[in-house]
Amino acid sequence: MTSKRPSAAGQASVSQETVFQAALRCFYVHGYDGASMRDIAKAGGVTPAAIYHYYSSKQDLLMDIISRFMQRSIDTTRSAISDAGDDPAEQLFAAARSHVLWNASDVVSSFVVNSEIRSLEPHNRQRNIAQRDELQRMFDAVVESGAAEGVFATPWPREASRAVVTMCTAVAGWYKAAGPLSPGEIADRYGHMSLSLVGSGTQVQP
Amino acid sequence: MTSKRPSAAGQASVSQETVFQAALRCFYVHGYDGASMRDIAKAGGVTPAAIYHYYSSKQDLLMDIISRFMQRSIDTTRSAISDAGDDPAEQLFAAARSHVLWNASDVVSSFVVNSEIRSLEPHNRQRNIAQRDELQRMFDAVVESGAAEGVFATPWPREASRAVVTMCTAVAGWYKAAGPLSPGEIADRYGHMSLSLVGSGTQVQP
Repeated sequence: MTSKRPSAAGQASVSQETVFQAALRCFYVHGYDGASMRDIAKAGGVTPAAIYHYYSSKQDLLMDIISRFMQRSIDTTRSAISDAGDDPAEQLFAAARSHVLWNASDVVSSFVVNSEIRSLEPHNRQRNIAQRDELQRMFDAVVESGAAEGVFATPWPREASRAVVTMCTAVAGWYKAAGPLSPGEIADRYGHMSLSLVGSGTQVQP
Repeated sequence: MTSKRPSAAGQASVSQETVFQAALRCFYVHGYDGASMRDIAKAGGVTPAAIYHYYSSKQDLLMDIISRFMQRSIDTTRSAISDAGDDPAEQLFAAARSHVLWNASDVVSSFVVNSEIRSLEPHNRQRNIAQRDELQRMFDAVVESGAAEGVFATPWPREASRAVVTMCTAVAGWYKAAGPLSPGEIADRYGHMSLSLVGSGTQVQP
């Protein structure tokens, strides 16, 4: 039977990335409660012991998937805003654009991150809320600064900022690589639509 | 043991609504794959036989939940547009407003409908796509008609229309009854933000 054991080559050869990707795929297809550690091991072609080498529990795996994705969302947005200069219109265009590109680049993670908040244990949920707030506050700061400078006409900067983030995140729910528009074209249009939404008179050139 | 059986009063007294609500709650908390028929029976305080009296399978239950919600989304949007008169700006304001109110009124169903498309079997998935298309096409028709009349400046009516629907649907993901704004206030703001997004010069008074 030894030759049929999935990790016959030994646990040391199983990378954390293999385990991570197997869990991500299982949570995407079956949901967190619908996927057991046994399912994840089978999907990754590894032993349960190989999973426990890196993760203490299924919850630990989910939290790693969600927190890594959120941290990358935060870092990507921060870089986009920072690289865009001082103009709130340029900043919002860049932030919306990069948020669309990031979510379209990994629709599987985006779905799991946005559908399995329910499955986070209280401590992890608090950490997740903090990351979500950090991301949202970067958009809020840009929209509020544009509104304060009078370049964004929206009377509701907070609601407009949330609407921008949710519509850009939602691209992951319908984006298909085989669709007529490239991710870059979609991102450009979402950048412009975000400016319209906040009542910007500025036309930004991508 | 008879007195401990959940439906001791008899199957005839178990309503389809009880079964439907128990399944909805289980799918919301555990996901479709994570909730068994036994879990649903337990949650509803009914026997599995009572569930099978109304539904032939768990898939049948999920499809009833999703298709009922989608049909109500379609009907609500159609009424809103029809009651708004002939002006595309009034129509879009009313459609966005009603879509927000509808999703905020049932955040549990909205979540299940939008996270369990993956769990629909091919035939049901086709029916779901047809319902989603029907809803989206009503918004598309309004935005395209405004663009054709020159009252909406957006160069991308289809993308703008999809962005409106996704940002309004997403309200269900963050709306809290204890929040500072009432559903009506949120809906009004989303109506106005939808008009901004499509580049409408018209100010609609709610």
